Amino acid sequence: MATKQEIENFMRTDFPQAKCTVEAVGAQSATVRHTVGFDELRPGGTVSGPVLMTVADCALYVAILGEIGIVALAVTTSLTINFMRKPSSTKDIIAKCTLLKVGKSLIVGEVSLYSEGYAKAVAHVVGTYSIPKFK
Amino acid sequence: MATKQEIENFMRTDFPQAKCTVEAVGAQSATVRHTVGFDELRPGGTVSGPVLMTVADCALYVAILGEIGIVALAVTTSLTINFMRKPSSTKDIIAKCTLLKVGKSLIVGEVSLYSEGYAKAVAHVVGTYSIPKFK
Amino acid sequence: MATKQEIENFMRTDFPQAKCTVEAVGAQSATVRHTVGFDELRPGGTVSGPVLMTVADCALYVAILGEIGIVALAVTTSLTINFMRKPSSTKDIIAKCTLLKVGKSLIVGEVSLYSEGYAKAVAHVVGTYSIPKFK
Amino acid sequence: MATKQEIENFMRTDFPQAKCTVEAVGAQSATVRHTVGFDELRPGGTVSGPVLMTVADCALYVAILGEIGIVALAVTTSLTINFMRKPSSTKDIIAKCTLLKVGKSLIVGEVSLYSEGYAKAVAHVVGTYSIPKFK
Repeated sequence: MATKQEIENFMRTDFPQAKCTVEAVGAQSATVRHTVGFDELRPGGTVSGPVLMTVADCALYVAILGEIGIVALAVTTSLTINFMRKPSSTKDIIAKCTLLKVGKSLIVGEVSLYSEGYAKAVAHVVGTYSIPKFK
Repeated sequence: MATKQEIENFMRTDFPQAKCTVEAVGAQSATVRHTVGFDELRPGGTVSGPVLMTVADCALYVAILGEIGIVALAVTTSLTINFMRKPSSTKDIIAKCTLLKVGKSLIVGEVSLYSEGYAKAVAHVVGTYSIPKFK
Repeated sequence: MATKQEIENFMRTDFPQAKCTVEAVGAQSATVRHTVGFDELRPGGTVSGPVLMTVADCALYVAILGEIGIVALAVTTSLTINFMRKPSSTKDIIAKCTLLKVGKSLIVGEVSLYSEGYAKAVAHVVGTYSIPKFK
Repeated sequence: MATKQEIENFMRTDFPQAKCTVEAVGAQSATVRHTVGFDELRPGGTVSGPVLMTVADCALYVAILGEIGIVALAVTTSLTINFMRKPSSTKDIIAKCTLLKVGKSLIVGEVSLYSEGYAKAVAHVVGTYSIPKFK
């Protein structure tokens, strides 16, 4: 298991490009935030799909690190996203992840993505991560 | 239908953040390239999953624009990616998209993603786009 | 909106092959049961994957009928299933569906599948249904 | 590797409920057939979605057996299906599977499903199988 602080330190040193910040982690779940600015937008004044996928992947990764400890080489093996509502162009994206299965080699989790302050999710993700054997 | 030049112009003005470039488009297919640099990498010396999803989404979008013309408001409704092999950290990502169904309101396509110069795909994507009704 | 009784009558007349029964429906959700017998099993003494997909699809359909009324021609457009734990060969499968988005033309829902009496889901499904326009 | 005959024998003894027959197998691919009758149909005179998922899963399984030999305990870990066209109610379903990755523990494949005699696929599937370690 890794704490919020340990995960933040790890993300800062190992994923300096990542823009998502950890809001909460623990109990097989995580909440992360991605600030929305020019880089995130697309025609129609909305957040681009790839940004939502990026935030979902980050939320999954943080939830997994929180559960199994700092494992840099955990890798996504599959991810399915359904886009449901148009995100606000002026609100941060908040991603809430819950792990559905924590196996020895595969972890499955789901993520609901929100424009901050709205009750209904803008997108829903299910993803699987593979955990290296030497763990 | 839109030509490679029209799509490039549209991407430059409407998606200035997009890093993918159009290599070929037409016949319900498209090939795009994404240059790999520092921003694309993650621990283990490989291209991050979200970058691959971004490139796949771009390839789908370009194939759709090539088929139905410049429709800025076409939006991804779902996307499933399977990560299969570790991408090279020193090769560009090449994405080849084929449209599987071009319906009036939904378009389905698949994308194979490659590290340039390698025969085996690093990831495979199936995605659906929704086309606005007023088209 | 359709009641449990209306949906049961409809399923019996229009889907006489369906083996799933409606346990509950309403509030954008549904619970259905599929009795497990010889036809459902596969080597290793477990319920086959296609049976789980069938039950999930039924749960989605029942939740949708409960929400929008009897619409025989609503059709699945996509479905993603993740198999997480080995189902019991001696317990019925219980599927609990929650609709995530009820749009005019597309409905998205998720389904958790259980071996009756167990707390942890054996599989998780996200599916989308398309609703015919004349509705 | 297993031959068409070995796979047919195995399916007959271990999966007596399966209705799909092997048309061809080898070179990391397989073609299977599912006869369409009353059990396969749904309102609107078409083949039900779960039947298509069942046939796709069978095609994946046969392609995998053809590649790695008779491994009864190989199990599906995830499957994504996109339904693209209405299948004919009077034609058999033909499923053509190609394996995209044959790893030590995970195999990824895609399947195109056809109403026999039609050129355009009625559905497209990507699935992953997990191979037990003792192999």
